[in-house]
Amino acid sequence: MAEDYQKSKNQAIQEISKKIRLSFLIITLVIVTLFVVVLNHIYGSYSLSLAFLPDISVAMIVGIALFLSVVGLVFSIGISRQVLRIIHDYSSRLEKILNITRDLREEIYGDILLEKIMDYALAITSSQAGSILLLDGDSLVFKIAKGQKDQELIGTSLKKGTGICGWVADNAKPIRIIDAAQDKRFNPEVDSMTGYETKTILCVPLKTNSEVIGVLELLNREGGFPYRERDEEIIMYLAEQAAISIIKTKFYEDQKNYEIHLTEMLLEAIDFQIPEKRGHSRRVARYSNIIARGLNMSEAERKKLYLGSLLHDVGFLKINSDETFKKEEYTRHPVVGYEMIKPVNFYADIAPFILYHHERYDGYGYPAKLRGEDIPLEARIIAIAEAFDAMISHISYRIPVSFQEAVDELRQQAGAQFDQELVDIFVTNIEPQHIKV
Amino acid sequence: MAEDYQKSKNQAIQEISKKIRLSFLIITLVIVTLFVVVLNHIYGSYSLSLAFLPDISVAMIVGIALFLSVVGLVFSIGISRQVLRIIHDYSSRLEKILNITRDLREEIYGDILLEKIMDYALAITSSQAGSILLLDGDSLVFKIAKGQKDQELIGTSLKKGTGICGWVADNAKPIRIIDAAQDKRFNPEVDSMTGYETKTILCVPLKTNSEVIGVLELLNREGGFPYRERDEEIIMYLAEQAAISIIKTKFYEDQKNYEIHLTEMLLEAIDFQIPEKRGHSRRVARYSNIIARGLNMSEAERKKLYLGSLLHDVGFLKINSDETFKKEEYTRHPVVGYEMIKPVNFYADIAPFILYHHERYDGYGYPAKLRGEDIPLEARIIAIAEAFDAMISHISYRIPVSFQEAVDELRQQAGAQFDQELVDIFVTNIEPQHIKV
Repeated sequence: MAEDYQKSKNQAIQEISKKIRLSFLIITLVIVTLFVVVLNHIYGSYSLSLAFLPDISVAMIVGIALFLSVVGLVFSIGISRQVLRIIHDYSSRLEKILNITRDLREEIYGDILLEKIMDYALAITSSQAGSILLLDGDSLVFKIAKGQKDQELIGTSLKKGTGICGWVADNAKPIRIIDAAQDKRFNPEVDSMTGYETKTILCVPLKTNSEVIGVLELLNREGGFPYRERDEEIIMYLAEQAAISIIKTKFYEDQKNYEIHLTEMLLEAIDFQIPEKRGHSRRVARYSNIIARGLNMSEAERKKLYLGSLLHDVGFLKINSDETFKKEEYTRHPVVGYEMIKPVNFYADIAPFILYHHERYDGYGYPAKLRGEDIPLEARIIAIAEAFDAMISHISYRIPVSFQEAVDELRQQAGAQFDQELVDIFVTNIEPQHIKV
Repeated sequence: MAEDYQKSKNQAIQEISKKIRLSFLIITLVIVTLFVVVLNHIYGSYSLSLAFLPDISVAMIVGIALFLSVVGLVFSIGISRQVLRIIHDYSSRLEKILNITRDLREEIYGDILLEKIMDYALAITSSQAGSILLLDGDSLVFKIAKGQKDQELIGTSLKKGTGICGWVADNAKPIRIIDAAQDKRFNPEVDSMTGYETKTILCVPLKTNSEVIGVLELLNREGGFPYRERDEEIIMYLAEQAAISIIKTKFYEDQKNYEIHLTEMLLEAIDFQIPEKRGHSRRVARYSNIIARGLNMSEAERKKLYLGSLLHDVGFLKINSDETFKKEEYTRHPVVGYEMIKPVNFYADIAPFILYHHERYDGYGYPAKLRGEDIPLEARIIAIAEAFDAMISHISYRIPVSFQEAVDELRQQAGAQFDQELVDIFVTNIEPQHIKV
């Protein structure tokens, strides 16, 4: 694409250069004419005979010189102005693309990204309607449609290879059509579905590294004008940037999906492999969040705490299932969990919450016997949430106590096993209906 | 940044417009002069007295007209050429940035990305040396350095707030310095370390959405010239694109890291929770790969098969650990594993390998009783690899058989339990030393 731009610019420069050469010719002519006039005037007055001069009056010659001179100058100025227009037009388009590229790059949601691409394409080309179709197997699926009855199109699909869009996707080439009805590739079905009358079309492939992922179609440029080469050029550039962005947001969304499902798998593995702890991790996360809200933690901090709470017992997955409740094995789980989570870049922040969630405020916990504020805040929160759930739930071998008994026990341990302030916040905010078994 | 470009362009346009107005003035002067000459010539010859004309010879007037005319025309052409240079320069820079942006966008490896950013920045500004430093807590760490003794700098760090780079990172503003030694912010330590003499500096922040992630520093523009405003402008734009790309490649790398560690966690969970199967998944993946190579599968296909083999028993994580080897529970694991993996977009392709790895070629397997080629190739491969490992390893309750006995058993089941062709490939390529317990 950049080569295409280069070409257009070079064509413009060539045209201008041609005009500059023409101005040079005019200047030369003017100078020669004036020179002749002067020679004639000076030497003529001294009666020097210039045989080659035709017998016309000096007035006539000066008149011609005047005329040519003015024409030449006006012409030169015209060129300068034209060049200015070209700079303006050309660089505005590049700047527009740079700004659009930045905007598309920063968009992380696939749906919004497609909306933006469509809106930019419509605005740049002054089109009345348009759509974005993405390849899904052998079909081109309408992801965005703007125009009449656009909502009916979303989700419907065209078979690859049929219609203008199919041709563009198959050939990975752009197409401009002046009168759709006259083009044998045009498939009038969509129009008959939407009741829209397609006249002019500009359709370009969305491709990355030679792989076509879909097409961008623009319909009916305003005023009934056909799409120009420069419309195609700029939309091709937009389409290229758009295709990269579509791939990137897809990756981003897949990554979120991956993270959600893999965390879920780990939690389910804990639930199924250590049935004594079923549901414990999720409940601890819920209780931790009650304290986090009481502390007015930011959303980002609460999110980290929530994830740390969900994974606080992940270490059990690396302790042999038949030895989980042997004391020397059981007490290894914070360190084992920490070592599992620490090397995960996305989770490096939460690893200490896991490592220290069995520390006690009075320094008699494990594994590091940290004391008081030396224990990370989040680990102190998880300790309370975890102890509360252990008391009221059917986990491990103990018989659960009542809500009130659990609250009383926390109060009693405040300042010893637990952080006094955090216990206060928890018991103030926890209510019996928060407990779902 | 785009506004800055806009401004520079508008300034250029204003200058040109001014020159065009000046040419108009010259043209007007030339026309008036010539007009006077003509009037004088025509009416003068008819002895019409023009009182306002000074008493100079017609030759003189024509000479002046000639001179002004030529000056005016040459001047106009000069403007056209200057405008052409500006177009060329300005749009080349934008095009360069568009091409660079595309190149940076497509780079997925963080190290190569930084190298590219550095090389582009050096080339665009004709700088002799430069470096990229990224913020890590309170330090700016040298990630890339080009120039003398550059390798010694990599990995060393500057305290945030010290030196030129520190100033730029703190203030999130670019800086241009003509003589480093004269600037009180300049920290000569790096020079004394590298033996390099820094003279001119252009240092810009690497920032995204107002967050500074590092700085890009360029030293000693060639020829000893100071950096110009336009160098700063283009490097600021490059830095902006570079910063987005740095963040994106970091995310991409973190995602890979996440995928590796989370897959590892699942495998370890299987190993620890079902000790009877310890190491089984990794060995099956190795054996599957032997068949894949024998089939000349592409690297991408082999990668998918490898991952599918690693995760073929993931379903066991969602079967209660004390019921794993009860037949009705055991035979659920392909379906359970499939349902775990199917919703993971990155893994959707491999879900069928998991679902069908207990099908038999003769149609007597489970869960779907598929037959022959209806079973996906990868599932047929995993079936052989898994059976082989089950025979020769200490997994489950069986006593392992010898390498030769296992090979013979596979041969015997070829065409019945297993795909004949795949068994042939496996037994041809497997050797006793491939088996690590």
